[in-house]
Formats: sequence, structure tokens, C-alpha cells
Amino acid sequence: MIIIMEPNASEEQIQNVVNHVHSLGMRTVLNCGVIQTVIAAIGETPKYSTDQFEILDGVRKVERIQVPFKLVSRDSHHDDSVITVRNNIKFGGDNPPVIIAGPCSVENEENLIAIAKIAKECGAKMLRGGAFKPRTGPRMFEGLGKLGLQFLDVARKQTGLAVVTEIMDVRDLDLVCEFTDMLQIGARNMQNFTLLNEVGRADKPVLLKRGLSATIDEWLLAAERIMDKGNSKIILCERGIRTFDNKYTRNTADIAAIPVIKRLSHLPVIFDPSHATGKWNLVAPLAKAAVVAGAHGLIIEVHPDPEKALSDGAQTLNFDNFKLLCRELEKLVSVLSPVKS
Amino acid sequence: MIIIMEPNASEEQIQNVVNHVHSLGMRTVLNCGVIQTVIAAIGETPKYSTDQFEILDGVRKVERIQVPFKLVSRDSHHDDSVITVRNNIKFGGDNPPVIIAGPCSVENEENLIAIAKIAKECGAKMLRGGAFKPRTGPRMFEGLGKLGLQFLDVARKQTGLAVVTEIMDVRDLDLVCEFTDMLQIGARNMQNFTLLNEVGRADKPVLLKRGLSATIDEWLLAAERIMDKGNSKIILCERGIRTFDNKYTRNTADIAAIPVIKRLSHLPVIFDPSHATGKWNLVAPLAKAAVVAGAHGLIIEVHPDPEKALSDGAQTLNFDNFKLLCRELEKLVSVLSPVKS
Amino acid sequence: MIIIMEPNASEEQIQNVVNHVHSLGMRTVLNCGVIQTVIAAIGETPKYSTDQFEILDGVRKVERIQVPFKLVSRDSHHDDSVITVRNNIKFGGDNPPVIIAGPCSVENEENLIAIAKIAKECGAKMLRGGAFKPRTGPRMFEGLGKLGLQFLDVARKQTGLAVVTEIMDVRDLDLVCEFTDMLQIGARNMQNFTLLNEVGRADKPVLLKRGLSATIDEWLLAAERIMDKGNSKIILCERGIRTFDNKYTRNTADIAAIPVIKRLSHLPVIFDPSHATGKWNLVAPLAKAAVVAGAHGLIIEVHPDPEKALSDGAQTLNFDNFKLLCRELEKLVSVLSPVKS
Amino acid sequence: MIIIMEPNASEEQIQNVVNHVHSLGMRTVLNCGVIQTVIAAIGETPKYSTDQFEILDGVRKVERIQVPFKLVSRDSHHDDSVITVRNNIKFGGDNPPVIIAGPCSVENEENLIAIAKIAKECGAKMLRGGAFKPRTGPRMFEGLGKLGLQFLDVARKQTGLAVVTEIMDVRDLDLVCEFTDMLQIGARNMQNFTLLNEVGRADKPVLLKRGLSATIDEWLLAAERIMDKGNSKIILCERGIRTFDNKYTRNTADIAAIPVIKRLSHLPVIFDPSHATGKWNLVAPLAKAAVVAGAHGLIIEVHPDPEKALSDGAQTLNFDNFKLLCRELEKLVSVLSPVKS
Repeated sequence: MIIIMEPNASEEQIQNVVNHVHSLGMRTVLNCGVIQTVIAAIGETPKYSTDQFEILDGVRKVERIQVPFKLVSRDSHHDDSVITVRNNIKFGGDNPPVIIAGPCSVENEENLIAIAKIAKECGAKMLRGGAFKPRTGPRMFEGLGKLGLQFLDVARKQTGLAVVTEIMDVRDLDLVCEFTDMLQIGARNMQNFTLLNEVGRADKPVLLKRGLSATIDEWLLAAERIMDKGNSKIILCERGIRTFDNKYTRNTADIAAIPVIKRLSHLPVIFDPSHATGKWNLVAPLAKAAVVAGAHGLIIEVHPDPEKALSDGAQTLNFDNFKLLCRELEKLVSVLSPVKS
Repeated sequence: MIIIMEPNASEEQIQNVVNHVHSLGMRTVLNCGVIQTVIAAIGETPKYSTDQFEILDGVRKVERIQVPFKLVSRDSHHDDSVITVRNNIKFGGDNPPVIIAGPCSVENEENLIAIAKIAKECGAKMLRGGAFKPRTGPRMFEGLGKLGLQFLDVARKQTGLAVVTEIMDVRDLDLVCEFTDMLQIGARNMQNFTLLNEVGRADKPVLLKRGLSATIDEWLLAAERIMDKGNSKIILCERGIRTFDNKYTRNTADIAAIPVIKRLSHLPVIFDPSHATGKWNLVAPLAKAAVVAGAHGLIIEVHPDPEKALSDGAQTLNFDNFKLLCRELEKLVSVLSPVKS
Repeated sequence: MIIIMEPNASEEQIQNVVNHVHSLGMRTVLNCGVIQTVIAAIGETPKYSTDQFEILDGVRKVERIQVPFKLVSRDSHHDDSVITVRNNIKFGGDNPPVIIAGPCSVENEENLIAIAKIAKECGAKMLRGGAFKPRTGPRMFEGLGKLGLQFLDVARKQTGLAVVTEIMDVRDLDLVCEFTDMLQIGARNMQNFTLLNEVGRADKPVLLKRGLSATIDEWLLAAERIMDKGNSKIILCERGIRTFDNKYTRNTADIAAIPVIKRLSHLPVIFDPSHATGKWNLVAPLAKAAVVAGAHGLIIEVHPDPEKALSDGAQTLNFDNFKLLCRELEKLVSVLSPVKS
Repeated sequence: MIIIMEPNASEEQIQNVVNHVHSLGMRTVLNCGVIQTVIAAIGETPKYSTDQFEILDGVRKVERIQVPFKLVSRDSHHDDSVITVRNNIKFGGDNPPVIIAGPCSVENEENLIAIAKIAKECGAKMLRGGAFKPRTGPRMFEGLGKLGLQFLDVARKQTGLAVVTEIMDVRDLDLVCEFTDMLQIGARNMQNFTLLNEVGRADKPVLLKRGLSATIDEWLLAAERIMDKGNSKIILCERGIRTFDNKYTRNTADIAAIPVIKRLSHLPVIFDPSHATGKWNLVAPLAKAAVVAGAHGLIIEVHPDPEKALSDGAQTLNFDNFKLLCRELEKLVSVLSPVKS
């Protein structure tokens, strides 16, 4: 921890900070600069908040040196983690990008199975579909609940695809685990610590979406929390962030976050072009961009009739456009060199 | 709902959109402009997502005319709502601003009671204090839990102050209701719809903090959800938003949100200068600014020794600074004309 | 123009707005909704500010229907514009992406010529290099000025590469035009209207960088201004925007802006991965992402010894990394289908 | 300067960085932490870019310790600077807030003089009015130019008010100086370094507006540039920043920036509630908020008939509302304790 003193800090103020650090069992190194003094506190700094140093007289600013996350960091686990779903689906490392496809919400069994079959035919390995839907307004369609989970279960049995769905309520954990292969934490719940704690205790892979305005550090700290509770099967998912301009896109796709995460963490990272853009005609260019930038997978909304979808129709691909995208992705992947993180 | 066609949309595309609107039981008005046509859809538009119109051929953009919230809107309830806590504390309308003070986290009984006494002495009506603390990192102090609630209960009995504390887990609802007078929904949980639904069914006033990057509309929609479930005792709380610059402040205090909310909604709105700034020496100027801009109250972090606080020390006032602020606020309030919304 | 009335607007207020619109020579269409009335103003709306309607009694909000830019819009010019530099370099349409490479600042002749040779060898068509450097702080290296322009001139003569450099001062226009093939407007000057007006009168192609926090509309309006003054040879350049997170990247690369611009405008759009990321090890993944998302070109900072560069060293590729990137781009381009906008 | 090494940096990499720092004539202090090493570079660090250290092998991150601005910092000039305009108008220190009022654009002589008289009557000390107007779109009213300056001159002679107007083109400097008492640098030109350099050489006070997305540091660096060229009569002006939500306000008023600037710099800082909010009915609450937060002045748009104003009508006060605001401000100022920065 680095404690930066004010330029006019007195000897006494500096000594007082040094004593305070020592009293907590840490060592200090003094860096007496031309303008001001910097005190390095060395020892078990993660135990202490920067606040209690920042408020001491004569202190200008306090900064941590270590990254705030540890278990998810490449510093503590150098090689890529490969997360395996249902024994045969592999996210991360040098494995080719995994495609997850499906409707925003599960609407009915027939429709879901039709989508699942197309998804499988195009090379997708997993089926997505919401049974519990977070909706901004209180009087909108919020999903079929348990019935939706059962339809997902039918679809996975018929097609062999693995299934991922969002969990919103800790009280649904057992139910959701029963019918699915991967738990999704949605963007709005990325800092729902109660929910993170519980999925951290579950024995299922977790797809952790980045919050709408979460920094890279906050996103990795959310993963750290899950791993700290015992679950290390985590896949990160970039899905667009909130910025000053959302006139032509729902969010701003942060493609650079993909290679950034790959440098900071050993966990796999995938991309959601549907939510990142909010427009079906931007899904293909952004999906391709993410894959060449190194994404370990894609999660894409697909529906036979997007104009009839009960939610998110504007960002959903129809079957023809989804097939076309899958063919284009295949060609790109064929010329990519194996990416070294 | 306003459906804006592309400048080159064909007659057939326009007719197709009109037919689609009629098929859903709504009327249309055609506005044939110089460059492009705008179709107004009139009827029960809130039932339909804009997505299903936006995706039709020849449509450029779809916009709602009505505000997305209804119960919390001044359009449906013209006069200010006054929310009463414990029969005698009144938020909203022409009532003078209510001050809520206390530590970030409840740390121990003695300390809490000392703070409560000072708060009362300075004119505060309510005591704040976290028993369950949301912490970004997984291995930080997360509050005393039930014991913290019990200490709050002791403090309110000794001082007569009402108590507000944050609830993070739906499973804690009964417990938290037992010991407190108002439930706080923290910024990170503003779109935790499961939690909003549950406090919407509770018989306690709710303090709803604005999410870190929530728009005014999203914040009011979160309140709408609570009210839609049956609880209309809601107090909104501005606490700073996330912007591009956080070098000198933790968040950006959105003071204009206070008069904006007062125009849009009948609900009271208060301000949290501690989280909005993150720096104790900015708490006083911003607290005063919020009050003259029309805030119905303030929630302020106070601690006898901020440098020893287990959390948020840097943004916490000590007793002397808190007393000074309360005196200054009193003078300002004395010269404010009653604000007409 | 759409004038949205308050739900409780009186008949008289509505009539007053209608009269005001008529008095300006425009027609009206009334859309009487369930909750509120919307008045469409039809005619020469671009002549009038929305402000003068918004301030009338009973008006809630006023919105324009037409896009605010006209000359640069695909609505007025359906096919892609191809901008030609020095007769043989073509940006836009189905032409393969053009690579522009070079140092941040021109430092000396020898160094510049070495870079130009490598750039040419790798397939770049243009050389970049700053003679006048905008620096945030006042006492940093601000470029060689006229001498830098002369070095660029030598380099283009020796290698045949075309040259682009930034212009910051209207008084330098003739000088810069004499030595270069394309004028660059930097991000900080995207709304320097004096400068835009002048390059709009020049007979040189203009590379218009997006401002740090410019919306898509503002960026296109800046291009509109240049075109309105008579110069239609404009190439747009996305270079990253400012968002809430810049810990691991200098800016947030807005890759989706590339396909968005291609839908809205007929002008070509290129990408600057160096400024968009600020980190040399993110340049390659983002450059590749931009190209598969449809960019018509790339502008990349290259230097023989980035650790000795006088500016922007951290985001600059050395020769080996630049060569490697060019080879990878070639492979990707070979499998891309011609993109239809 | 603090150079943070990677946790796995080798002894050789550390030594290499140390040697590089020494070769530039600076000293080093090694801080060997539990996880990683931090090297403090001590000496003339402002001469060197952090880039050239960041790119060395084994370096994770480089941070400056000193504030990047020097002349404008309180570190180098402890007491408040008081900027005097026309001998009798004083901004800064303990002087009461100065009110600047006037139309967005100068429209005609009669109108301007009527506004100037009201402004004076209400206690304003200066008249604002644009002769050269920056407009986002190219075909909008851009001001009367020299004629506008002449009208301002007539108004100041008739009323005795001092005059401030925006300068956009370095070639207009002599002309604008001839007719006005203070030069305004608009938000869009805050990083127009050519213009900053020129007003830095002028003998007139400068009103420096904060850029739309300028950090506090960038804003102070723009002031530093002006002061570095020789002009130290600078008044800073907060006018709202760009954030994710602009549905109900044009910008987000950053009220906390006022006390932050007062701590960092000795220069006076004023507030522009008109541009910060964009809505006339938010001007009064925010103007009052800024004054109690410590602003040294206000610049407010006033017009006899805002609905007929050629620009910015929606954010302009009419005479009655301006008078009311001035009376309320007077009451607030009377109870404010002299603020100690």
C-alpha cells in the first residue's frame, strides 16, 4: 500500500502515519521525493481499508499496489483454466469458441425445441433461454418459471445440448440446478452478493455477466467472491457497458475487455453480442469481432420469428441470419492462430 | 407509441405496420412528413414491447410517449406524498428536511449508542447503521448480522430515534422488520427485482437508493415495482452516480436529480452526501447544496473516530464536524422559501 | 418534429402550440392518445430549434424525427462514397482495408524513413506522423512543426507512401496542405468549428477523428459541417471513447460504431487501435476486431524502439509486432465476404 | 514516479528498470513488498512520460505522485487568488458571489440593453452574450459577429456592466479584446490548445469553461497552459458534464467539482446553471446549490422572451424568474459563513 503525503506535510505527520502502520504490524519504507514523501506500507495490507490511512492528517491519497482479486488472477494461477460443462463442452484455453444460442425467454415447448434443433444443426453446443426474466418495468412478461425450466429440460434431452438459464432468487437454487447445466448470473445481479455467495456454494458452472457499469476490477471481484465460497467453475461474459451514447445501440460493446480479462485472469471469457448491441443487424459484425479478439465463446439470441418474441425481439437473429453467422465464424476461426494470452 | 418509418419506406411497408398495430387492437394516426412518415399507435401501448414494431420492415425507430412509470408519477397523483415513519417523522411535502445519521456499519453497542445520542442532540430524527454490509471484495468485514440489528434496537429504545438499515437477502426480511423502522435497498440492489418484490409486500417504509448507473427512469421504475406489489411508503435517495471522473470523489453527486424527481414523482427524495462524495471534507458543502436544491432529508455517516471505523472512514464525519454541519443547515433552512414542486 | 403535451394540458394550451407552429409556416397533425396529445409539426422543421416549442405552456417534450445531418446521411446518398487519396489509394466501398502506419510524433528524419520503409514493406499505403502534437500538459514535447512536415515530405518521396498529419491551427492550413496528402482533425478538435470550417474549404481529404465523448450524431454533424463548406472527401475515424473504466485501457474502443456509421452514412470509416486501447499488447486483437466488423482501414502507431518514443510509447508497436499483425490481417481479409452495408 | 513491477518480475528486470531511471539522472528507492516490488523514481520526473517506463519488461504500471499541474495548484500558491475585472469586480477569496447574466446570443441592440438593465437592477456585475456562437449543426444561427461585439460595447457603456463573450477563432483575438472585459473559452474549446496558447498571451481575464467530458485534472491543465503562457487571470467555470443520463437534463451538474477545485487550486470557480441543466426550471435550485457549495459566482442566461430566443431558449430565465432567483440568492448568502478552503 502506498501512502502519498501532502507536499507540506510535517515531519510529525509523517511519523504519525509511520507509527500507525507499524501499530498494525506492517513495515514501512520511506520514499522522500523532491516535492513530497511517499510511505510504502508492507505486510498484510489487504486486511486494511485504505480509508483509515487516508483520513490521517497530512495524507493526500492512498493506493493499493496489489490487484484486489487473488484467486481469479493469473498471478496466482498462471495457466488458462478450462471449464468443462457436461463432460464434453470445453470453455477456455485453446479450445475453439463455444456457441450458446436460444431465445431470450422460453415461450413454449414447441418453439423452444425448434430453436434448439436449429442451434444444434449450426454447431452450437448449448441452449440458452430465460425461465425467470428480469424486467425493468413491473408489469411485463417475467417468464414461465418452473414450466420454462421443464421445457429446457425436454429440449436438452431431445437434442443433447447443455442448458444455461438465469437464476434471480436464492430460493430457486435447487430447482434451477435440477434442470440446467450452467447457472447464469445476469448483469443486474453481478453485485447481488447474497446470490453470488449461494452460487459459490453450488456444484454447477456459473456464467457471470458483467454489470452494466461494472469496472473490470469489480467484475473480477464478483468472480473472486464465487470462487472464495468454493466454486471455481466460472465463465465470464462481456455484454456491453453503459456509456453516454445509446441512441443507435443498447449498450457499448467493450471488445477490449476480452483480451484484458485474458491477461488478468485464468478464467475463460465469452461475449454476448445480442445484449451488447440491442440490434439484430449489429449482432453478426460484433460476434465476429469478439471471436477474433479472443473470446472463448458467444451467447446469441435466436428465435424463429423475432417480431413475435415476447422479449428482446429487436436484438434477436432469425434462423437464416443465425446460420449465416455460424458459417462466417467457422471461416474466421479456421485462419486464427492459436492465441497466446 | 410513435413509429418512425425510414425515409424510403414503401407504401406497402407503411400499410403493413398499420395492419400490425390494428391487429393488436390499437388505432393509428398517420403523420406524413416532408421526409418520412410517422405512425402514432394509440391504445393500450404499455402492454407491448417496442421491439416487435422496431423489427418490422421499413421501420427506423419506435418511441414511447407515456412515461414508463405510472403509480409513482405525478401524472397519476398530483400532490406530494408525505411518508410517515413511527407516527411522528415526516418525509416530503413542506416538512423540513429530516436528518438520518449514524455509522456505516454497526460495530459495537457502546459506540452505536454514543453516536445515536450525538445524532439526537444535533436534531437528527433517525439512526442509520449497517448490520449486513455489501462489500465489493469477498474477504472484508460484512457486518455483525443479527447482533447488529439488536444493537440498533437498543439504541432506538434508549434514544427514541427511529432506525433504518439495509436488507440484502430476502430470507432476512422478517428479522430485519422486527428490529427496524425503515428498510434500506442499497444502490447495488436497486434492480434486484426479487428483493424489490418482497419489500413491496412488507409493511415498512422503504428507502430506495439510486443505482450507481441507474437512469432517473430506471430508479422510478424500481419504485414503481415496490408500489405495484402494494407498498407505497417509498423514499428515494440520490447517492451519486458513476461517471468518467472519480479521482477526487467516489461518485458524482447528481444534485439536479433532486428537483427532477420532485417534478416527475410525488414521492419524497433525500440525499446521501457521504456516498455521493466519498470524502468527509465534501460532505458539508454537498449536504447544504442538496437541501437548498429541495431535498426532503439527508442521510449522513457519523462516527466518533472515523480513522478507526471498520468501513467508509474516509467519508465519515466526526462529532464536531457533524454538529457544525447541523447548525449551518438550520440557518439555511430558516431562509428557504417553501419550495413549490 | 413531434411535440408531446403534458397529460393534463388544456385545450387552450394545445391550440396555442398549434397556432405557434402555423405562424411559422408549418402544418400540424394532432395525435390524441389515451393519456396525452402529440402534435406533429410538418414542414421546414430543421430551421427551428426545439427549444422554442419546449418552453411553451403545457409542452412536456419536443423531439426531432429527421436525422440532424443530411449531406453525410445515406438517406441523401445511398451508395458508399469511395474517397481517393493521391489517385491510387481508395477508402470505402468494397475496397480492402487501407493501413496507415507511423510514429506518434515525427522525431527525426532517419527514424521516420526507417519506419516508412517497414510500413511500405508490410503493405501500408500511408504514413502517419505528428508535426504539431496536442499535449494535455503545457510543458511537454509538442512536435517539430514545419521541420516535421519537411521530414514527412522526404519520407513520402522516398517511399511513395501518401502522408497524413494533424492540423491544429487554422493559420497553418496552407503550410500543412503543401506537405501532406490528407489533413487529420484530432479528437480534441472534433468540435473546433473554426478549424472544421477551414478544412471544409480546403482541397484535401480530411481524416475526422471522433471526439472523446462525441455521440455518433455529433461526429456526423462535424462531418456535415465540413461537407457543407464544400469538401466532401471525408474519412471518419473511431479512436475510442471515454467511459467510467480506464484502468486497463486508455479509452473504450467502440467497435459497434463502425457498422453503425456504415448504416447511417455513405462515408468510409476507419479505426485507430493505438489510441482506442493505449496499450501495445491490445493493438493487434482490436485491429483485427475492427476489420472483421467492417472497418475501411486502420491507423496504427509504429516505432523502432517504443521505449524511446517521445510520445505514446506504451501504445506503439515495434517492427516485429507490426509485421505479425499485418500478416494476420491479410489472412482475415481473405476469408471475409464482401460486406453489404 | 512510482513504477510497479509484475509479481513475477525477475531480479534482472528490476535492475534494468533501476538502470534506466538512473540513466535519466534520477534516483531510485526500492520498496520490496510481500507480493511485488515498487520502484520510486525521484528527481525531475515531470520531464518524462510514464510511457517509456511502462513499456519496459516486467513493469505492470507506472503512476505519477505529483499533481500534473503546478502553477494553478495550491501547493505552489497557498492563498486564494482574487481575479479583478475592470478594477472593481472581484472573483474569489471571501468576496461574495459575482453574478453574470445575459442572453445566450446577442440578437439586437434594443433587446440586449433591456436585458443589461434588468441584470444591473438585480445586482449582476457583468453582462454575458455570444457574438460568435458554436453550434453543433452547420446551418444554424451562429451569431452576429463583430456587430454583436459592438452591441455589447454599447450595453456596457450604458449600464456600466463589464462584458464577457466567447472567443472561438485565434484570428479574432484583437477584435474581441477591443470590445470586452473578459474572454470566454467555451466547453468545446477547453482542449483547443492553439486558442489556449493565444489567450495565455493576452492581457484580459479568461473565463475557462470545463469541457463536456474533461476530468478535473484536464481542466486544471488547460488553466495551467494559459498561465504558463503568462496570463494568470483565470476564472474556472463548471457547466455540467456528460454522463449516461440526459433525458431530463442537458448535462449533469457536478456541484462537488466546486469544493474540489477550491481545495486543489487557488483560482476562483463559478457555476453555469443554464448549460449544466438545460432547463429553465432547474436553473434556480442548482444556482442556489452551487452558491452554498462555495461557488465564487454564477453565469446565467436571461432573456425577456425565452420562447423567442434564437438559441438556448429552454434553459433561459425570463425577467421575473431571474429577479426571484437574485432575491433568494441574497438571502442565502446572508447566512453563509465565510468559507475556508
